[in-house]
Amino acid sequence: MKIILDGMGGDNAPFEIVKGATLAASEMKHKIIIVGDENKINAELAKHKYDKGQITVRHAADIITNDDAPVRAVRTKTESSMVIGINMIKNGEGDLFISAGNSGALMAGGLFILGRIQGIDRPAMASIYPILGDKASLLVDAGANAECKPVNLLEFGTMGSIYMEKVLDRKSPTVGLVNIGAEETKGTTVVKAAFELLEKSDLNFIGNVEARDIPKGRAEVIVCDGFVGNVILKLTEGLAWNIFKLLKSKFTDGAKAKIGALLLSDKLVEIKNEFDYSEYGGAPILGVKGAIVKMHGSSNAKSVKNTILKGIPYVENNVVQIIQNSVVEIEEILISE
Amino acid sequence: MKIILDGMGGDNAPFEIVKGATLAASEMKHKIIIVGDENKINAELAKHKYDKGQITVRHAADIITNDDAPVRAVRTKTESSMVIGINMIKNGEGDLFISAGNSGALMAGGLFILGRIQGIDRPAMASIYPILGDKASLLVDAGANAECKPVNLLEFGTMGSIYMEKVLDRKSPTVGLVNIGAEETKGTTVVKAAFELLEKSDLNFIGNVEARDIPKGRAEVIVCDGFVGNVILKLTEGLAWNIFKLLKSKFTDGAKAKIGALLLSDKLVEIKNEFDYSEYGGAPILGVKGAIVKMHGSSNAKSVKNTILKGIPYVENNVVQIIQNSVVEIEEILISE
Repeated sequence: MKIILDGMGGDNAPFEIVKGATLAASEMKHKIIIVGDENKINAELAKHKYDKGQITVRHAADIITNDDAPVRAVRTKTESSMVIGINMIKNGEGDLFISAGNSGALMAGGLFILGRIQGIDRPAMASIYPILGDKASLLVDAGANAECKPVNLLEFGTMGSIYMEKVLDRKSPTVGLVNIGAEETKGTTVVKAAFELLEKSDLNFIGNVEARDIPKGRAEVIVCDGFVGNVILKLTEGLAWNIFKLLKSKFTDGAKAKIGALLLSDKLVEIKNEFDYSEYGGAPILGVKGAIVKMHGSSNAKSVKNTILKGIPYVENNVVQIIQNSVVEIEEILISE
Repeated sequence: MKIILDGMGGDNAPFEIVKGATLAASEMKHKIIIVGDENKINAELAKHKYDKGQITVRHAADIITNDDAPVRAVRTKTESSMVIGINMIKNGEGDLFISAGNSGALMAGGLFILGRIQGIDRPAMASIYPILGDKASLLVDAGANAECKPVNLLEFGTMGSIYMEKVLDRKSPTVGLVNIGAEETKGTTVVKAAFELLEKSDLNFIGNVEARDIPKGRAEVIVCDGFVGNVILKLTEGLAWNIFKLLKSKFTDGAKAKIGALLLSDKLVEIKNEFDYSEYGGAPILGVKGAIVKMHGSSNAKSVKNTILKGIPYVENNVVQIIQNSVVEIEEILISE
């Protein structure tokens, strides 16, 4: 297998990206091709020990930044590391593309360069959702599709379920539909119709899930439109950040508190680590004809390593092909409507 | 002023409700009429010292529970404490109705018994959103309107802004539109159109607010549809609950941790208190022809007291009338479209 890594995407590119690649390489046999500014990437590679037959560099003269408009960037920056990397997947030069760069551009690149899997109306970005003290859930859609039709939510549930089963090794993962009440009659017209479709499916659909139950891990696959998904992910991030800021200010306020915090220091590290869910890998773009995974923009070497390693079953277990095969089931449900 | 209190709504009725009423009465001159099962309420009242001229009881034979379907309950349970209480507002027997009961029924009661303010298309439930280490924001809509038109979001911003100014004493409160990016071009068709309307208004509109900035207090009035609002409120509740559960388990794990937690016990209480935002009062139903306030179902006596006291400026500062007057401005913006 060949893994194509965007050497230029994210806040810590290329140094953490390159370091992460060398860490991953030491734990697996697969090849890694890092795409990006040759000089910069080679300079970073020179800092690490690695097998030169396992990690190679492919030059890319341009970069898509987070300020770039996604569609325009993909159309015009043809020499960017991201566009070159996705084209390598299309041309069979690689099996998995990983980037910490512009999410919108990555989605647009998947759509325009690889194309949708036939029968999937809307590809989605799926994001790991941290469940404290427990395993992570998968949230689909994480922001790619602000407006959805009912069938899109069925697609999200189907694709997310396949990913959880094949990549994160969950048997028959529970699928929940984000709604404003547990009752079937709650929610918008779209959500109510999606409920009916999901109920007809072979998925392990557990019905509506209220937002308060999401952090408790009630559903392993959390289905919602991209607007709601984005709100869920960003609110979680913002609220956790705010709570930790408050803890820090309270726990350093006065000598007694400082001693208490010192005694709890290992526990506080453990708590912080609960929010590090990089062990579960990155955010896959589901529904395009190839394996693309988004890493968080602030990914460090450890996250990069984990995303690469977790990408292996994504390819080896043929997730893209299995999603392709699932289209028939989705179409059967739609016809029975 | 006469405050009508639903004696039977919520998890702790009637004991915490009645106790809260006596606490509030001792801090103000206004009259309170508690509506509900006469025997039960009088039995609770007998446990407290209070001015019998200030607190009186109005019998109601029935109760609307949280399991009741809202519209049906309001239509059929005419002898319930909630329906009798709202009718008392309609008939001028009281100025403010407060209940910890079924939110949907309270909204339905406001709509069917009091009616919409003419020109307001969709009344909303506004909920206080806790900002840690700072003042609270107001979130409109908190769940009453799952599907909205752009004008509804303009109404929510306008009514929320008036409430914040007149009841919580914020001068020219900032109004933010929940969206999946800061740029004007982001979001759904409805949100994009709402952005344009809000920008034309006289509100202190600060543009789109991403969910990660909500807990940081970026906007004093947070505008969104009721689906997203419900997700924001319930996710906040669920995530905070989960983080505190994790803290508790970590801080009681081993002798060293327990001593540390003991030294931090006053700080931990302070942190917990940050989430008690009952000092800001309950959740007003904005846009109906009368003042109705929802309290959290689990309200204790202190919350009941605070909700009553914070209800005074809601009535004294003529918020309902000011919302009525604001309709002209909303209509001017719509005509200029």
